[in-house]
Amino acid sequence: MAHKGILIVVSGFSGSGKGTVMKRLLEKYDNYALSVSATTRQPREGEREGREYFFKTGEEFEKMIAKDELIEYAKYVNHYYGTPRAYVERQLASGRDVILEIEVQGARKIKEKIPDTLLLFVTPPSAKELRRRLTERGTETPEVIEERMSRAAKEAESMDQYDYCIVNDALEECVEHIHQIVQSEHQRCFRNLAFMDHIREELKGE
Amino acid sequence: MAHKGILIVVSGFSGSGKGTVMKRLLEKYDNYALSVSATTRQPREGEREGREYFFKTGEEFEKMIAKDELIEYAKYVNHYYGTPRAYVERQLASGRDVILEIEVQGARKIKEKIPDTLLLFVTPPSAKELRRRLTERGTETPEVIEERMSRAAKEAESMDQYDYCIVNDALEECVEHIHQIVQSEHQRCFRNLAFMDHIREELKGE
Repeated sequence: MAHKGILIVVSGFSGSGKGTVMKRLLEKYDNYALSVSATTRQPREGEREGREYFFKTGEEFEKMIAKDELIEYAKYVNHYYGTPRAYVERQLASGRDVILEIEVQGARKIKEKIPDTLLLFVTPPSAKELRRRLTERGTETPEVIEERMSRAAKEAESMDQYDYCIVNDALEECVEHIHQIVQSEHQRCFRNLAFMDHIREELKGE
Repeated sequence: MAHKGILIVVSGFSGSGKGTVMKRLLEKYDNYALSVSATTRQPREGEREGREYFFKTGEEFEKMIAKDELIEYAKYVNHYYGTPRAYVERQLASGRDVILEIEVQGARKIKEKIPDTLLLFVTPPSAKELRRRLTERGTETPEVIEERMSRAAKEAESMDQYDYCIVNDALEECVEHIHQIVQSEHQRCFRNLAFMDHIREELKGE
C-alpha cells in the first residue's frame, strides 16, 4: 500500500535512553533514516560533520532560513539548531521513515507544519527510574541531575501532545514497540488516500 | 501501562474475508473477546443462542432500547439488530479488547458515542480479487454477486472514516497486522492519560 515514508519525531526526557533506542532501531531495520540537524555551534571533541551535525556559520544558517531550507529551527544560548528540509524530503520520497530526535517545542512546530508527522515520546517507567539512570551514568554532577529532573517535570507537561507514549523498560522490547507502531501507522487510512481512491474507482468500474 | 481494553469495530466488504480473519485472531490470541449481537430475526439452521446472536422477541428488544442497554441498534428488513452494552463493558473493564463486526453505519454511530473506539476496515487487495473470491465460493448466484459488488462500491465511500485500512491478501499476515495495530494502539497517549498523570505527579515530587 503506502510507499511514502513517515516523518517521525522522537522526544523523551534526558535519561530516557531514547538515543540508545534509536541507535538500535537503525541498526536492526533498514527502513529508517536519521535526520541530521544543522547548527552554528562549534563541533565538540569526536563530533563529525554530517554525523552528529552539519556545522554552519551564522551567515550560512541565516541563508538557509531565508531560503526556507529548514523544516524548523530554534536558537538556544546564542546558537542556531535546525532540521534541513532537503534530506528529509528525499528520504521520505524514497519510502524511508525519517527519524528526528528533537525536543518538545520543535516537535510542536513540526506537527503544525506537517500534520501527518508521527510524534513519539519515550519515557522510563517511573521518575525514580529516571533518577537512577541519570545517577548511574556517573558523569553528571548532582546539580546537573537536579536540573535534568526539573526539566523532565516541565517536558512531561507536553507529553499528551504526542501520538504515542512508549515506556523504555527493556531496550529490545522498546525498539520492537516503536517498530510495530511505525509499521501499523503505515496502514492508517489518512496515509493511504491514494490506495483507497484506487479501490473505489476499481469498484465503480467492476 | 494501559489495562483497559479497546473497543474495536471491524468492517469490510462481503467477500473481504474479515470473518475468517476474526476467527483466526480469536483463536491465536486470548486478549480478544467477540461481541455477540442481539436480533429479533429467527435463528437459522445451525445458529445457536449466544454464539451467532442473542435471539430476542420484538418486545424484549424494545425494552432493551428503552433501558439504554444497547450501544447501537438498527432495523433492517423489519428486524432489529443491536450491540448489548453489558457484555462489552464487562470485557473492556477486565482488560480484554472487544471486537464488534459491524457495517459502516453502525461503525459511525459507535464512534460518535464512544470516540476512542478503534475503527478497522478490512479490504481485499483489489476489486478484481473481491469478485474472484465471491465467485469462487460457488454458493452465490450471479445476481447476488452483482449486488455484493455494488454494495461494496457504496461501502467504499465510507472507508476514510476508519482509522486503519488493512489489506487481506494472505490470512496469517492480515491477522498479524491487526494484532500489531491493536498492540500499538494501547500505547497511544490518549489511552494512557492515567499513566501520564502519574509520571507527572512523580516528577513533581522527585
